[in-house]
Amino acid sequence: MPRSAARLADIAPFHVVELLTRARELEAAGRDIIHMEVGEPDFATPAPIVAAAVDALNSGKTLYTQALGLPELRQAISDFYRHRYGVAVPASRIAVTNGASGALNLAFACLADPGREWLLADPGYPCNRHILRTYEGRPVSIPVGPESNFQPTPAQVGAAWNEHTAGLLVASPANPTGTLLTLPEIAALAEVCRARDGHFLVDEIYHGLTYECDAPTACAAGDDIWVINSFSKYFQMTGWRLGWMVIPEAFVRDVEKLAQNLVLCPSTPAQYAALAAFRPETIAILEERRAEFRRRRDFLAPALEAIGLSVVARPEGAFYLYCNCSAVAADSFALARKLLEDAGVAATPGLDFGANAPEKYIRFAYTTGVDRLAEAVERLRRHCGR
Amino acid sequence: MPRSAARLADIAPFHVVELLTRARELEAAGRDIIHMEVGEPDFATPAPIVAAAVDALNSGKTLYTQALGLPELRQAISDFYRHRYGVAVPASRIAVTNGASGALNLAFACLADPGREWLLADPGYPCNRHILRTYEGRPVSIPVGPESNFQPTPAQVGAAWNEHTAGLLVASPANPTGTLLTLPEIAALAEVCRARDGHFLVDEIYHGLTYECDAPTACAAGDDIWVINSFSKYFQMTGWRLGWMVIPEAFVRDVEKLAQNLVLCPSTPAQYAALAAFRPETIAILEERRAEFRRRRDFLAPALEAIGLSVVARPEGAFYLYCNCSAVAADSFALARKLLEDAGVAATPGLDFGANAPEKYIRFAYTTGVDRLAEAVERLRRHCGR
Ligand SMILES: Cc1ncc(COP(=O)(O)O)c(C=O)c1O
Ligand SMILES: Cc1ncc(COP(=O)(O)O)c(C=O)c1O
Repeated sequence: MPRSAARLADIAPFHVVELLTRARELEAAGRDIIHMEVGEPDFATPAPIVAAAVDALNSGKTLYTQALGLPELRQAISDFYRHRYGVAVPASRIAVTNGASGALNLAFACLADPGREWLLADPGYPCNRHILRTYEGRPVSIPVGPESNFQPTPAQVGAAWNEHTAGLLVASPANPTGTLLTLPEIAALAEVCRARDGHFLVDEIYHGLTYECDAPTACAAGDDIWVINSFSKYFQMTGWRLGWMVIPEAFVRDVEKLAQNLVLCPSTPAQYAALAAFRPETIAILEERRAEFRRRRDFLAPALEAIGLSVVARPEGAFYLYCNCSAVAADSFALARKLLEDAGVAATPGLDFGANAPEKYIRFAYTTGVDRLAEAVERLRRHCGR
Repeated sequence: MPRSAARLADIAPFHVVELLTRARELEAAGRDIIHMEVGEPDFATPAPIVAAAVDALNSGKTLYTQALGLPELRQAISDFYRHRYGVAVPASRIAVTNGASGALNLAFACLADPGREWLLADPGYPCNRHILRTYEGRPVSIPVGPESNFQPTPAQVGAAWNEHTAGLLVASPANPTGTLLTLPEIAALAEVCRARDGHFLVDEIYHGLTYECDAPTACAAGDDIWVINSFSKYFQMTGWRLGWMVIPEAFVRDVEKLAQNLVLCPSTPAQYAALAAFRPETIAILEERRAEFRRRRDFLAPALEAIGLSVVARPEGAFYLYCNCSAVAADSFALARKLLEDAGVAATPGLDFGANAPEKYIRFAYTTGVDRLAEAVERLRRHCGR
């Protein structure tokens, strides 16, 4: 019998899909479920972005574009770095991709040699280790916890580095914790990698969704850093599948060759849509929604704390609260199942984010309105008997 | 200095891009260039498909979908197999992908073990060997020529198979030649693979663009065959990046795990658009355009023959003529450069399709109207002194 490649044994599905499927069954049976497991904004794409797509479609802009994206979109992203961050990033270093996912695929396709090791934070975005494994790289976890705000430290990275190590990938703000790296922290991590001739990748997909301050971009810490971003979260274009990557100059040609062969080009309608993403009227809508996310976080974090679900990290960004649930249950996966069945609240168990004490943690996304969050808190309170 | 992965040394860019860049320079300088190098229909996406996308966008359908695609689109594709081919393919075996490109990526991510060999026709679609190499598989060329209508034969496949061989990928209609495999030919190739516990993949992206007959689908030759298709060519949705793959039952779960981790989902607007692709009013438009492609082919093939550019294969499908140019020039790449500079006609040299006597061949795409094709032929005639 023909079989799948050996790597498939190491590639895990999303465990939360099991819960989602059960949630749909319950909903089909008439139950009201509050969805706090979903990793995407609950807002539709802002109207000016949609209007730009509709215009492009109606004028027949449906053909392939250049492999690295429309020159005017690459320029618009370059301008965005100048205006938003005061950093000069030439358009020639920017690749438009199929979401941050597409960027991560191209980066590892370009960089990951078989058997070479890559350092990843645990807990972290689960797809990273599977994408890496697909290109035959080897993911190595750095366990991170509250003591370092769930981000790897230069000391940890230095200690974990060995002759097989090829590089480091971090996210700021991070998923599932929402924690940030400061610019000096990013610079220090970059220095550790640089000193070892290693690659350094920073996933900035939750930029724009920070609530105390703007997150600094790793582009300001050196032009040898790979920076990944997306139109999915802040720009609320998840389903369009559009993102980008800032590439160190020496690797642009290799990424272009890969893009030509693996993807041909990113979505043309999405690219024309994204040209409207940086316009003032769009940004005004996005900033209102950011304020709404902040209100939700400010409501939800203390409310969960009061129930005994302690928010262990400083959730400065993204739209997640990563809670230690050990005061409430011994196993977060069992808890997630019970919360769904008994309380009608869906959340994501730690298991989806790694192997670093996942049974202690559960992630709540505030991707639903405050009224629904309040109802969820009430249900959780009753369930936990507080 | 940090470096790219070793595989990058084996990944070639599209050589035609060099010509395209030069063509744009010439056009910027006021020259009229006839584009016959482009591998996409010159028609915008049919209006009913665009209208469906606009409707979906205006009703806020911009979120992620399931990793394997919208259930209703998978069902519509399943229905298409029943109506168009009379073949039963359950929706559960269909994955919606980022174009045929996305399907080829998922297939090789799922199947290609490092160092294992895959048989590919040469000449063939150039991306195949590079996608395969990216997942650390090893492409092995089967040289094909006029004697087998540029398709591999069961005897060739049997002879090339060894203990390292994992499978075979063919395309029908093929790129760059437009040649077809009959159902008995497909069945015979499948049998060779099956007898050796190998995988068999058939790329049917040019289905619908055949001019003597409808191409048979490999789905009719066994449910152990992987069948790749796309909305790019017949449905004229190139820039939308949407395709699909029919997966043998035993591999569906593995492909789903990969899709969840590598891509999250295919483009949501494109999926809603594609729901209108199978409607009778859309098919009516597509069939008119197919007739137009046929008129172009019927004009162009004899006209090129008359100039000494002999159409060596039976171009039954796609929108390409693969011509032996050795009566006119010793090296097709030099010829392509000269045709561009001197005659203002852009075509793709054999070099982009493999290593099987590429200097003898040049590909002309009939992706422009008959009047422009006539002008191109006139320029070529003058250039070749005929
Ligand atoms: C940290 C992180 N990176 C990357 C992605 C991929 O997102 P997309 O491909 O939609 O840009 C996600 C999605 O949830 C994420 O959380
Ligand atoms: C034979 C063949 N397969 C696959 C593709 C990929 O097309 P897409 O990703 O647009 O579906 C092409 C594009 O030209 C092709 O010619």
